[in-house]
Amino acid sequence: MSPMQMKTPKGTRDWAGEDITLREHVFDKIRSIFRLHGGAELDTPVFELKSILTDKYGEDAKLIYDLQDQGGELCALRYDLTVPFARWLAMSNVRQIKRYQIGKVYRRDQPAIARGRLREFYQCDFDYAGTFDLMVPDSEVLSVIVEVFEALRINVTIKLNHRCILDGMFAAVGVPQDQLRSISSAVDKLDKSPWEEVKKEMLQKGLAAEVVDKLGSYLLSSDISNASDIESTLSFIKSDEVLMANEDVKKGVQEMELLSQYLSAYDIATYVKFDLSLARGLDYYTGLIYEVIPESFSTVNGAALQVGSIAAGGRYDTLVGMFSRRDIPCVGISFGVDRILTILNARQNRVEDPKPKIDTWIIASDSSSLVEERMAIARELRQAYISVDFNPNASQKPRKQLEAADCVVVAVYLEEDTETAGGIRVKVLTLPEKNLDKATVVDREDLVDEVRKRLV
Amino acid sequence: MSPMQMKTPKGTRDWAGEDITLREHVFDKIRSIFRLHGGAELDTPVFELKSILTDKYGEDAKLIYDLQDQGGELCALRYDLTVPFARWLAMSNVRQIKRYQIGKVYRRDQPAIARGRLREFYQCDFDYAGTFDLMVPDSEVLSVIVEVFEALRINVTIKLNHRCILDGMFAAVGVPQDQLRSISSAVDKLDKSPWEEVKKEMLQKGLAAEVVDKLGSYLLSSDISNASDIESTLSFIKSDEVLMANEDVKKGVQEMELLSQYLSAYDIATYVKFDLSLARGLDYYTGLIYEVIPESFSTVNGAALQVGSIAAGGRYDTLVGMFSRRDIPCVGISFGVDRILTILNARQNRVEDPKPKIDTWIIASDSSSLVEERMAIARELRQAYISVDFNPNASQKPRKQLEAADCVVVAVYLEEDTETAGGIRVKVLTLPEKNLDKATVVDREDLVDEVRKRLV
Repeated sequence: MSPMQMKTPKGTRDWAGEDITLREHVFDKIRSIFRLHGGAELDTPVFELKSILTDKYGEDAKLIYDLQDQGGELCALRYDLTVPFARWLAMSNVRQIKRYQIGKVYRRDQPAIARGRLREFYQCDFDYAGTFDLMVPDSEVLSVIVEVFEALRINVTIKLNHRCILDGMFAAVGVPQDQLRSISSAVDKLDKSPWEEVKKEMLQKGLAAEVVDKLGSYLLSSDISNASDIESTLSFIKSDEVLMANEDVKKGVQEMELLSQYLSAYDIATYVKFDLSLARGLDYYTGLIYEVIPESFSTVNGAALQVGSIAAGGRYDTLVGMFSRRDIPCVGISFGVDRILTILNARQNRVEDPKPKIDTWIIASDSSSLVEERMAIARELRQAYISVDFNPNASQKPRKQLEAADCVVVAVYLEEDTETAGGIRVKVLTLPEKNLDKATVVDREDLVDEVRKRLV
Repeated sequence: MSPMQMKTPKGTRDWAGEDITLREHVFDKIRSIFRLHGGAELDTPVFELKSILTDKYGEDAKLIYDLQDQGGELCALRYDLTVPFARWLAMSNVRQIKRYQIGKVYRRDQPAIARGRLREFYQCDFDYAGTFDLMVPDSEVLSVIVEVFEALRINVTIKLNHRCILDGMFAAVGVPQDQLRSISSAVDKLDKSPWEEVKKEMLQKGLAAEVVDKLGSYLLSSDISNASDIESTLSFIKSDEVLMANEDVKKGVQEMELLSQYLSAYDIATYVKFDLSLARGLDYYTGLIYEVIPESFSTVNGAALQVGSIAAGGRYDTLVGMFSRRDIPCVGISFGVDRILTILNARQNRVEDPKPKIDTWIIASDSSSLVEERMAIARELRQAYISVDFNPNASQKPRKQLEAADCVVVAVYLEEDTETAGGIRVKVLTLPEKNLDKATVVDREDLVDEVRKRLV
């Protein structure tokens, strides 16, 4: 008996039983939506060269898991599926693709398991890469988001912002160019922290008090509090001369107007809020950014804390160019499956009809265990794609064997019988009936057909 | 433009295109067999506490990938799926289960990519845990192996041995008790290296020359060369008084006799060879062990080198006990998917009928790009579970748009038309016909039905 710690590493977990059944159900739903859009699957290694991950994640880079240097290359566990996708695009000849990937990613964050925040967690990513008409891929990605949550029956709000508008606003109030990402990262905390804290962080980062206050006047404006629809926020921006004097803001506004049109075409405009305080922590976004908040947690200000966003993404037009001479503009979405499962579990919205693990169960009379006959019949049924099992402790009494047959549809009951050819009488019983006297005798060669008939 | 290396880490690869399609096809086949046997899925973290992996893998432990110590627990990437399964069993209340797991494992080995040997590779494991009648679970696991390779249409030979017979033989010829595993590991190389090299390794490990020679007389015996069927090898052992004087050998022989009976019941005896030189490198096996060799590579002595085994496993009755006070006997099999794919690719036995990525393609006349109408129709079709796409460069000419519609079944063609209600005339064309004049006009509200009809 060893004194070792019996646990999974901090922030990780095993998946088994109903949990993995529900998870696979969610993966299937998401995968089927991705395929309705023509998504092609990609799978990349769990770790990448450390250099691939460097300078992609801003302040979050400290959360990257490194592999130990055991001689050879320096590697790190992937932090998301986006950077590996961009690396793959840069290495391949592909210039346009809708790709999806479902896989685990790794962040040395403070885990909060009850809220579905782990260090090893699944992401389901859909990304649309290629040089295309403005906002056409972006609006399709947003329609993917809506379709996924419609399929999962989770009511959501998609909070949108545009990096050009955000950065233009920062520039317009006087944030120095080299502090854009650092201040953006502070603003991103507004959904979890009160303004006073965010303000303090900005001051600590060296921003002048008057710049912070001007920024606050936009971010906290009552005209757009709690995130308004696209039209209202656009009106607010367009009525502000300081903002509209900035070229980046102007460009972002044009794109948001086009997007608004396309969201109406997709009939998904009602899902969307335009939130000027949405910033997203990651460095690589260049245009539209978005976060998906489950509706029941997003009504009261600050309550989004409970689960946080359950999907997030945006446009990143220069990430592939960090890996290769040729840029490929991309836009994508990443679904956080663990948090989605937390919601489905909390709502007891579990898979209603878990499939029986096994269709058929083979038992035998007390007089003999007939193990080899069970094996022969099991092989035959499985060859007919009928799932089947028997108790490997063959000598148990038949009634006890039958009791173990939970979630089973048909029982096959074997008895020794000198009058039957082959010496074995075969009976079939459809459960939940467990009275063996009610079992029907069938010919050995009709068994597979008889079982199949009872399973339909 | 950065000078960074554009590659995946040594011994790892991306999966995309036809490769991942074939791989998912193989996973589906394997998973369906596992489920026919009542297998339940398990998923464990990619890394484990280092202490969990310690003292499980014998000489191969040097191949384990460690995570860097960044403060907190010492962790390592999983080396197989068996030890994590045993750790999970020890932590849970489950006392009997058939579990399967499909996942990546990690070994800092010398990669040989052409032969499907990588540092990150997939394993598909099926294990039968619980205290049951002798050899009943073991024979079922062997039937799983046969069914999987029948489903994949790969002819295989399953080489069997029994650790009790192997260790008994070692003891009978005079191998010291504390050298059993180390000598076993040398014997395991006999399929890749000539006897002279294996002999040298044993002598270097301090085994007396006469012990080595006695061992050689068994391992190289012409009576059982090239691995015989179970009956022949059992006869060879039973005719040898030195071996039969050993209690472990006797126990192993009894189990192999019972197994032989059960393999006949499953009608899979012809797949099996009993090979006294099969040893398996891992420490944790305690009974039956086996390796699966693809037939075309296994006829000539030594040629198995080309791909090596494509599945391997055995009985491990004490591994769970290394983690908990309560032992749970287990027996299982691990399929090496990468090597299986190497074979399928070499045989050009690829998926014959790759499904079209997309069923429907929406195009529009030159006069207007009708982007928003395409979006509205795309959303409608996807809601009806019909996969659909359109060129996001909307202003392309319709004939060019149609050319891009590879692997598509139905095209929806939109034209502006003042005489139609809504201003849009909708036409439908079943491909490969690409003459737009042959498209049929349909009412807007009949579109989904019409497309569905043409897809069936």
